Amino acid sequence: MADFLTKKEENYSQWYNDLVIKADLAENSDVRGCMVIKPYGYAIWERIQAELDKLFKATGHQNAYFPLFIPKSYFSKEASHVEGFAKECAVVTHYRLMNDPSGKGVIVDPTAKLEEELIIRPTSETIIWHTYRNWIQSYRDLPLLINQWANVVRWEMRTRLFLRTTEFLWQEGHTAHATCEEAQEETMKIVELYAHFAQDFMGIPVLKGSKSDSERFAGAEATYAIEALMQDGKALQTGTSHFLGQNFAKAFDVQFTSKAGNLEYVWATSWGVSTRLMGALVMAHGDNRGLVLPPNLAPIQVVIIPIYKGNSELDKISAAALEIKSSLEAQGISVKYDDRDTHKPGYKFADYELKGVPVRIAIGPRDIENDTVEIARRDTLEKTVVKREAVTDEVKNLLKDIQQNIFTRALKFREENTHVVNSWGQFKEIIDKKGGFILAHWDGTAETEERIKDETKATIRVIPLDSEPEAGNCVYSGNPSKQRVVFARAY
Amino acid sequence: MADFLTKKEENYSQWYNDLVIKADLAENSDVRGCMVIKPYGYAIWERIQAELDKLFKATGHQNAYFPLFIPKSYFSKEASHVEGFAKECAVVTHYRLMNDPSGKGVIVDPTAKLEEELIIRPTSETIIWHTYRNWIQSYRDLPLLINQWANVVRWEMRTRLFLRTTEFLWQEGHTAHATCEEAQEETMKIVELYAHFAQDFMGIPVLKGSKSDSERFAGAEATYAIEALMQDGKALQTGTSHFLGQNFAKAFDVQFTSKAGNLEYVWATSWGVSTRLMGALVMAHGDNRGLVLPPNLAPIQVVIIPIYKGNSELDKISAAALEIKSSLEAQGISVKYDDRDTHKPGYKFADYELKGVPVRIAIGPRDIENDTVEIARRDTLEKTVVKREAVTDEVKNLLKDIQQNIFTRALKFREENTHVVNSWGQFKEIIDKKGGFILAHWDGTAETEERIKDETKATIRVIPLDSEPEAGNCVYSGNPSKQRVVFARAY
Repeated sequence: MADFLTKKEENYSQWYNDLVIKADLAENSDVRGCMVIKPYGYAIWERIQAELDKLFKATGHQNAYFPLFIPKSYFSKEASHVEGFAKECAVVTHYRLMNDPSGKGVIVDPTAKLEEELIIRPTSETIIWHTYRNWIQSYRDLPLLINQWANVVRWEMRTRLFLRTTEFLWQEGHTAHATCEEAQEETMKIVELYAHFAQDFMGIPVLKGSKSDSERFAGAEATYAIEALMQDGKALQTGTSHFLGQNFAKAFDVQFTSKAGNLEYVWATSWGVSTRLMGALVMAHGDNRGLVLPPNLAPIQVVIIPIYKGNSELDKISAAALEIKSSLEAQGISVKYDDRDTHKPGYKFADYELKGVPVRIAIGPRDIENDTVEIARRDTLEKTVVKREAVTDEVKNLLKDIQQNIFTRALKFREENTHVVNSWGQFKEIIDKKGGFILAHWDGTAETEERIKDETKATIRVIPLDSEPEAGNCVYSGNPSKQRVVFARAY
Repeated sequence: MADFLTKKEENYSQWYNDLVIKADLAENSDVRGCMVIKPYGYAIWERIQAELDKLFKATGHQNAYFPLFIPKSYFSKEASHVEGFAKECAVVTHYRLMNDPSGKGVIVDPTAKLEEELIIRPTSETIIWHTYRNWIQSYRDLPLLINQWANVVRWEMRTRLFLRTTEFLWQEGHTAHATCEEAQEETMKIVELYAHFAQDFMGIPVLKGSKSDSERFAGAEATYAIEALMQDGKALQTGTSHFLGQNFAKAFDVQFTSKAGNLEYVWATSWGVSTRLMGALVMAHGDNRGLVLPPNLAPIQVVIIPIYKGNSELDKISAAALEIKSSLEAQGISVKYDDRDTHKPGYKFADYELKGVPVRIAIGPRDIENDTVEIARRDTLEKTVVKREAVTDEVKNLLKDIQQNIFTRALKFREENTHVVNSWGQFKEIIDKKGGFILAHWDGTAETEERIKDETKATIRVIPLDSEPEAGNCVYSGNPSKQRVVFARAY
């Protein structure tokens, strides 16, 4: 089974595609750029949703739902937003089909043309701020902390499962505040929330920082992002949080009466993560046997596989397996007992490795005799034999240990692949030969940024939040710089 | 606050619209027929989703996600499906906007026309069966038990919040089976699951039965539904489960190798409930003060309101309130303590009544002296004074009692409004003057059904599943009939 995977050292891109499909995460549909998320992939997405949703609610956010369709004219209201978003999108022009008069199938009814075309939301700032106009009158209506779980559509030319698809699933937060400071605080609170989720649930270390002007969200005053490093040395932006200033409030005329009695424009943020996180999970931890899922997001944390000849052996093993299963489940651990007789243990071992199940327990006749089980961990592939009475504690500790280990491993990889670079020659060499994150001085101009991109395909991933200012000279132009920024080739 | 509601006896339809809006459930958007589901409404929908999802998973179903877009040609593949569904729908014809050369906003780029138009899914049988073709080869791949939570679009001409909207949220189950019997069993299992959910979670008694041929789902062999009676005597279809036979398997060429080695077409079911359930919750239980939510689905089950003058009183009350809150929460009860100083207790009482919160606890200075609280139940508006130490037990019992009581009340209402009718004169009189369910004999022809509908606007809601056969004569034509069926005017 694992042999069906391309080796990641040989062709990382093909390894990724193979893995997404063979591990039953997703597949391409017949509809250009749209994917089918298969049950196993969707189960991981549900775990991501559930944990993020808890974090959002714990920080005072509520969910709501806004229309899929956005009238075309809304996009013209915020000048820079229209440039960024209203271009490559799905446009609904008609609302009825009719039988083809020639008798062949159905055609669009030309008389059922919409007066104003509707755009399938590529993001919902415009329709939400149009709605907020009626919801916000006074400072007492603020802050408004709303999140939406939804599908969105961006007509991408080149698509890849999870990483870039025409339709994708995401959450989009849209908050409204009485003051600039509050909105800025919210923007940063979400960056921290996303970083916490990436590190403690996904097991992926991330850099936090702001985007350069050219990478900023269309309509934002400032965009912050978390960036992760994949095993091929390319960066993946895994979440963004935007400080929108008063841009959307002004575009949609959303004003409120302040405590002091003045009429003021509302301050805004928006932020989102998407099914792209699934791609990050695959690429950050996977190996040549398949996925390596962090226990905190694995739909199945433990699989138990019986190894037996004949039904009397199976009966004894099943009794032991079911006892272990219920003991683990009582600790809140999700367990699958796979006693299918249609597949051999070897097949099952490989299949659950492919699917990244963190812990495998195998029970054979000798285990029954000795009152033991064999426990294997997916991250290191190590096996140990454990006494039955110790299994629950052992597994509990192991799940914590695996969660920690895959994070530590990913952090070590990032550290080994982060390069402090001081010359343009070194920059080009490292980008070509090693990849990874490059910490280099930049003169702060869009022009230099553009030239670096043209010559190396590397972009500024973030201007780090936590780093110390350090005077220096731009790695490209030699002009003065106050801080190193992070470059990488990116997905 | 409750004065803002139209009295339901005066204008039931207006009462419904008022209530949906004033209780912050939903509102109309600027996009024709599309609603915004507001945070409080969405919180109820999340409770509905969570409980249904548990029931689906407990019966072996898995979630997945299929594309929003369906190629136009897919609709032509199943002959009766295209008649029923491909007509009033949103059609995507273009994938790009451009700046208007005249400088005014954006226009559709005429060069970015799709070769084949895409339909926004009105339901997903076609794209799912197209996908299943690749997933199913052998009997070992069956049954395939998949559900999807998604948005769908049907271009409705007349819309009403929750009851009929252009875009709505729903779940759609799509299962594939090796035998006719298994698919039929699945169809019925889901009818029972829906009825259980309606009765035990929503507190709404439902009739289960099959639909007449003319009300059958386009592409189904048989459609089963659950039907509830609203307080205005009109029926509301609250869930459907379809036995699709081999229709979609044949249309999309989905065959499997049976155990016996034969190539056979797969058997199918599909089933769904939608945000329409929100409308049912409002209309089945609401009164002139607002919503009456069943405790099993209420996002806030208990609200605690302090009644105080000055901060020292508030401090004592808050200490008591927070102790009660955490004691209730330890029992899994969701509690809100509303100590806002911007609103008076009277306003809060009315607001939580409007929002249908099942239990209200009020604590004033005298309660602190006496070690008591006042508990009010939303369904009967009864109040009792309870000793502090007894609050948790009292509330636990009360929540169960309210859940039971609103069901019993709705059942009693239905029984009082179900009429066994044997003559056409009586049929017309009851439909006009009383409404409700009419049990009458029907000759089984579409012609009679159509005429009854034309003359009275009553339709056959279900051919009941549980009723005894009873020979008789059709209430309209006088022709022989084997069983009474259920007529009503319906939403």
